[in-house]
Amino acid sequence: MKVLLVNNQSDEPVMEFGDYPTPEPAENELLVKVKSTALNRADLLQKKGKYPVPEGESPIMGLEMSGVVESAGKGVTKFSEGDRVFGLLGGGGYAEYCTIHEEMALSIPDFMSFEEAAAIPEVFLTAYQALMWLGELKNKETVLIHAGASGVGTAAIQLAKHLKKAQIAVTAGSKEKLDLCRSLGATLQINYKEQDFAEKIRERFGENSVDLIIDFVGSPYWENNISSLGMDGRLVYLSMLGGAKVEEMNLVPILRKRLTVRGSTLRNRSLDYKKQLTEQFWNSTRDLFEKEKLAPVISAIFDWSDVEKAHLMMSKNKNAGKIILNGM
Amino acid sequence: MKVLLVNNQSDEPVMEFGDYPTPEPAENELLVKVKSTALNRADLLQKKGKYPVPEGESPIMGLEMSGVVESAGKGVTKFSEGDRVFGLLGGGGYAEYCTIHEEMALSIPDFMSFEEAAAIPEVFLTAYQALMWLGELKNKETVLIHAGASGVGTAAIQLAKHLKKAQIAVTAGSKEKLDLCRSLGATLQINYKEQDFAEKIRERFGENSVDLIIDFVGSPYWENNISSLGMDGRLVYLSMLGGAKVEEMNLVPILRKRLTVRGSTLRNRSLDYKKQLTEQFWNSTRDLFEKEKLAPVISAIFDWSDVEKAHLMMSKNKNAGKIILNGM
Repeated sequence: MKVLLVNNQSDEPVMEFGDYPTPEPAENELLVKVKSTALNRADLLQKKGKYPVPEGESPIMGLEMSGVVESAGKGVTKFSEGDRVFGLLGGGGYAEYCTIHEEMALSIPDFMSFEEAAAIPEVFLTAYQALMWLGELKNKETVLIHAGASGVGTAAIQLAKHLKKAQIAVTAGSKEKLDLCRSLGATLQINYKEQDFAEKIRERFGENSVDLIIDFVGSPYWENNISSLGMDGRLVYLSMLGGAKVEEMNLVPILRKRLTVRGSTLRNRSLDYKKQLTEQFWNSTRDLFEKEKLAPVISAIFDWSDVEKAHLMMSKNKNAGKIILNGM
Repeated sequence: MKVLLVNNQSDEPVMEFGDYPTPEPAENELLVKVKSTALNRADLLQKKGKYPVPEGESPIMGLEMSGVVESAGKGVTKFSEGDRVFGLLGGGGYAEYCTIHEEMALSIPDFMSFEEAAAIPEVFLTAYQALMWLGELKNKETVLIHAGASGVGTAAIQLAKHLKKAQIAVTAGSKEKLDLCRSLGATLQINYKEQDFAEKIRERFGENSVDLIIDFVGSPYWENNISSLGMDGRLVYLSMLGGAKVEEMNLVPILRKRLTVRGSTLRNRSLDYKKQLTEQFWNSTRDLFEKEKLAPVISAIFDWSDVEKAHLMMSKNKNAGKIILNGM
């Protein structure tokens, strides 16, 4: 089958088409003809050789996809040939075909396009996991979502609003991104380039007012994150794009405010964990997608032959929402 | 009624007897004739004016007690005059009488003395909360308990062993203390004065092998704690007696190992939280106390007129287990 592979012969690795054996669906797996896949930041790291592929996963990029069931492996009961499906992958989306465990696959509702479906898994499952499982978000709590216009950010705003009626503060770096966050349901939009987010939050919600923070930035925000959190507050790290070394960390607020600080990624979780997450996510959100309360935010759609343009857009932070590859 | 009060006229505050109004049991409260109370480190801080009394709580020291129900307030259904009870207090144990909400009171089983009962609430409820609620200890996990011979430490070792069949590593500062930990069920005893605990744990259980750490020490142990934790590991802070400032804190392991760091105290929790904790604790441990699988570790018993000797013993870290005051 035709796939996109990394050519790292030159200094700057580039994607190029190549051949690769079409995967065989194992027991309980589906072979899917890929219609769309979506970019993730991990792709850019993997391209540079900086993101080791977890054991047992496809070395081909692409952590999510939508497509049509081509054939079903032994024991499959939930899907059959021709079904439209989408879901999270351990890898393998940048290809004509991929395999997925039937319990990791979700049926694409009639009202949803392949592009929309491919834009959902990584960001919505990550946001759902961060808010609901790790962050234990409760009704009407106050949540601060950094990088609000990122893929995960846009999903998290919507989920926090529609599942928990949360008060939502976001940070982002431009007016356009903040407007997008507002349109999705953010209550307070903060331009981190111009404003101190802790100060803005204090003004709007008061001292020690945040119940949950979803952070991708790391050390530059540590101090302000901790000072913004209230009693029993939670700080969930999904990445640390701004650095990970905190010069002087004070443990006292962790004890005094009974804080929880935790980190998590989705990709290296067990299949069982991902199945449960997928199932619980879809049970609590499918209706909201149908009613258009929830919708994936798509920033751009490229033909997969233009993958380099797509990667460039992401590496320059030009996207607000997901970047889709089509046309496999 | 007769109580112990702080005389802070001189440089070194001392406890002395005084008079105080006998409390009135409010709705659903019991008035209890105190038989025994037990010391807590918070008492020493409060004596020095360094532990603000939570709003609505008695300014009299004493965070736990055992005694006999003197009278029952309106609406009390679970206890009546003459019942032997024990439980956690927000304060008020250093006195002839105290009040306690009936749902915070537990019936003292026949096999248990007043001294034993008074030695249970703070350390066992704190340890139970830390291991089971905050630390989510699972069957056969590996747990590291710092200050293993402290009151909470001795309770945590027993609970981890008998409720979850855990592998238990402990740290303490003397052979006597480590022997006590071993007798209670610790698998690996580490003298922190002579050995690097992270190294000892690596030797015995392997790299990244600890699932849960209960820490009272704080910054001096940060680095070794984080490096000892394995995937999905949890670090629970109950105090930070050794300091709270960590230089150069690295957030990376929190993300990579999906760690959870949390702090908690028991005293400032809501009444509702404490009721639930008390109930759940007793439901899962009463039988184990009866079978003598669990037992409070009592280091010394003083008459309450000797409270200064008792405080001195604690401030010098001479106790391994609880210090009891008797004879109110």
